[in-house]
Amino acid sequence: MSTSKGLEGVIVAETDITALSDDQLSYVGYSIDELAEKAEFEEVIYLLWYKKLPNEIELESFKQALFDEMFLPEALIEQLRGLNLQRAHPMSILRTAVSMLGLYDDDANQEVSEDVNEREALRLQAKIAPLIAAFSRLREGKEPIAAKRDVSYAENFLHMLKGKPVDALEVEAFNKALVLHADHELNASTFTARVCVATLSDLYSGVTAAISALKGPLHGGANEQVINMLMEIKEVEQAIPYVQDKINQKEKIMGMGHRVYKTGDPRAKHLKEMSKQLTKEKGQEKWYLISEKIEDYVKKEKGLPANVDFYSASVYHMLGIDHDLFTPIFAMSRTSGWIAHILEQYKNNRLIRPRAEYVGPENQVYQPIKERS
Amino acid sequence: MSTSKGLEGVIVAETDITALSDDQLSYVGYSIDELAEKAEFEEVIYLLWYKKLPNEIELESFKQALFDEMFLPEALIEQLRGLNLQRAHPMSILRTAVSMLGLYDDDANQEVSEDVNEREALRLQAKIAPLIAAFSRLREGKEPIAAKRDVSYAENFLHMLKGKPVDALEVEAFNKALVLHADHELNASTFTARVCVATLSDLYSGVTAAISALKGPLHGGANEQVINMLMEIKEVEQAIPYVQDKINQKEKIMGMGHRVYKTGDPRAKHLKEMSKQLTKEKGQEKWYLISEKIEDYVKKEKGLPANVDFYSASVYHMLGIDHDLFTPIFAMSRTSGWIAHILEQYKNNRLIRPRAEYVGPENQVYQPIKERS
Ligand SMILES: CC(C)(COP(=O)(O)OP(=O)(O)OC[C@H]1O[C@@H](n2cnc3c(N)ncnc32)[C@H](O)[C@@H]1OP(=O)(O)O)[C@@H](O)C(=O)NCCC(=O)NCCS
Ligand SMILES: CC(C)(COP(=O)(O)OP(=O)(O)OC[C@H]1O[C@@H](n2cnc3c(N)ncnc32)[C@H](O)[C@@H]1OP(=O)(O)O)[C@@H](O)C(=O)NCCC(=O)NCCS
Repeated sequence: MSTSKGLEGVIVAETDITALSDDQLSYVGYSIDELAEKAEFEEVIYLLWYKKLPNEIELESFKQALFDEMFLPEALIEQLRGLNLQRAHPMSILRTAVSMLGLYDDDANQEVSEDVNEREALRLQAKIAPLIAAFSRLREGKEPIAAKRDVSYAENFLHMLKGKPVDALEVEAFNKALVLHADHELNASTFTARVCVATLSDLYSGVTAAISALKGPLHGGANEQVINMLMEIKEVEQAIPYVQDKINQKEKIMGMGHRVYKTGDPRAKHLKEMSKQLTKEKGQEKWYLISEKIEDYVKKEKGLPANVDFYSASVYHMLGIDHDLFTPIFAMSRTSGWIAHILEQYKNNRLIRPRAEYVGPENQVYQPIKERS
Repeated sequence: MSTSKGLEGVIVAETDITALSDDQLSYVGYSIDELAEKAEFEEVIYLLWYKKLPNEIELESFKQALFDEMFLPEALIEQLRGLNLQRAHPMSILRTAVSMLGLYDDDANQEVSEDVNEREALRLQAKIAPLIAAFSRLREGKEPIAAKRDVSYAENFLHMLKGKPVDALEVEAFNKALVLHADHELNASTFTARVCVATLSDLYSGVTAAISALKGPLHGGANEQVINMLMEIKEVEQAIPYVQDKINQKEKIMGMGHRVYKTGDPRAKHLKEMSKQLTKEKGQEKWYLISEKIEDYVKKEKGLPANVDFYSASVYHMLGIDHDLFTPIFAMSRTSGWIAHILEQYKNNRLIRPRAEYVGPENQVYQPIKERS
């Protein structure tokens, strides 16, 4: 039996989390368009994990439970300080720090079971926000800031990161980005997590493996590459020549193209609108205009649509977030989807173990070392 | 298109590293039987990475290069001390520590390319040995021991772990175990690594993801479960009643069964022989005898053969290795195969991104929170 390279189009699991088709995306049957406009990120986490939207009481207690875990063990903060923060890439730091979180959670030593998983899930989703905020501050010589009670996950993260008030449009844009990145079926990092935990490894292992995959520039790493590209382009009139040049050199344009969406990524338009509004609010429309020029040109010339990473770059830039934190933020949101998929994998598990076709030399004879050429 | 659960029998890549069939295993065309009898682990690493057995000069310089990297950065040792070593599982520690190694390697921030990969590969394979030895000693309140020049990888690890002389049979057995665990085609951890780095993520990410998968009891975690089982059984006459009981309760017998080998795992016999010799040398034959009774019984009753993890358990126990280090040692050996597969993936890369079939509710309408039940 042979399959297409990169498992393109191959169905490897049933899921009741996320559906995507040519240009549509829904979480548990709710269109992403509706969720992006109306839902808080916490509602979406709940939806992905429990397969229903929470009512008022459920949402309240879920938010409380998240808040109760939204702090880091002191020992972990001490460890973070020593992590070569100035030189290492934040995705490598995040990979290490999430793995480390698992060392402080005794549940990670238990056999996987429903209540153990639920406790770990909540802790990890809650703690990854102060974790990213903390190492970002520590590398700038600033101290971590504690989470605030009674604010949303989106606002809390920005608060812990910056320690400055944020305005309503900023929170709206950031919440929307979290909602839109939360899950995406069997993307490369989620599939990595599922293959990993199908050995019945623990939840921290699954999320650590997923972060390892998200780091790659063909996946989550793309949003950082997009902002680097915008910074290199600098001015609107440089956009097309720059991209032309890349295309001539057969280089990839980051933030463009997608394995599944061939006509358009349904998430992109929401972030595009936010990019437009935010760049206007900040008087920095050029980042939006450069982006739009690239999008139109690559669509026309190569038939490739902008993907979710493309406009998230200018949105995060307008929020004043360091460029090398863009992919960790993607991870913070996608943790909700990774966890949903890990739990789904545990529920109906079988080891994921495919085969390769051997095409190397056969029947070689081991010669004593002195006789080898 | 639909495929079998767990990707059983599905071919997802071509490889020139390892071939396995019903009851045969070869690395680059050399039968595992010959390599287990004659090869040093270093020759096998070289073979997996460069697709030829090294001649004398090549082997000498490869060993020198490994030795030159067989130390840990001081900062890393300091970090290890703080890692909750007493409570966390060594596989969680190893996952964290290998990820951390990546923070001290500037190459991990570079785009993947041939020379960058080669440097990282050598460092990681060299450093994982002192890494495991160091955290094992630190958790016992002992200081790390430096590697010795001019001894084999196998002997050096035992030296760094124990700081005591080891005899020839011990080194032979340990070297054989490393050779036999080095690669195994697209097993779950190797597949995890390949899915991970197909995003063009770096080598440390790939190996961290693989360790995350190996930790699971259906995969590498099995060897620790096997020794736990032997310890519970205690006496030869308890072996069959114990296993009968497990089977009646529909529990799995660890170390038995395999996704690919349905009649016999070609690695098991070599470790079985080593287990026999070592238990005899140490006057502790009962561990061998208990194992043999289980093997025969499960084969007869369930038709399941012993796999590589089964006899490695009593071998490592005879080497005086802590039981919770058995899986980290598996990782140390398998790192050579993971790296070979990661390099192969980079060479002819495409994103690995399959699909799921959505079976959940459709067309749900988002209701305002106050109206939800
Ligand atoms: C996302 C991505 C990995 C999907 O890859 P894929 O399904 O394996 O698609 P392929 O690489 O087979 O692409 C098909 C063709 O389009 C080209 N292509 C795809 N994405 C491109 C891009 N961003 N810029 C230029 N050309 C691109 C490929 O080179 C290939 O051309 P060819 O047939 O002449 O070789 C790919 O589009 C990409 O690398 N995009 C940039 C990175 C990115 O934004 N990733 C985030 C995704 S959310
Ligand atoms: C290795 C392993 C995961 C392969 O799994 P797989 O290919 O998915 O095989 P399945 O789980 O479908 O097993 C087929 C049947 O044999 C049974 N079986 C497999 N391994 C078994 C074991 N170790 N003990 C008891 N029954 C076992 C399964 O329960 C199943 O029975 P069923 O058809 O009545 O449900 C599996 O054999 C196992 O869990 N072994 C124990 C863990 C271990 O030693 N892993 C190390 C492998 S190197």
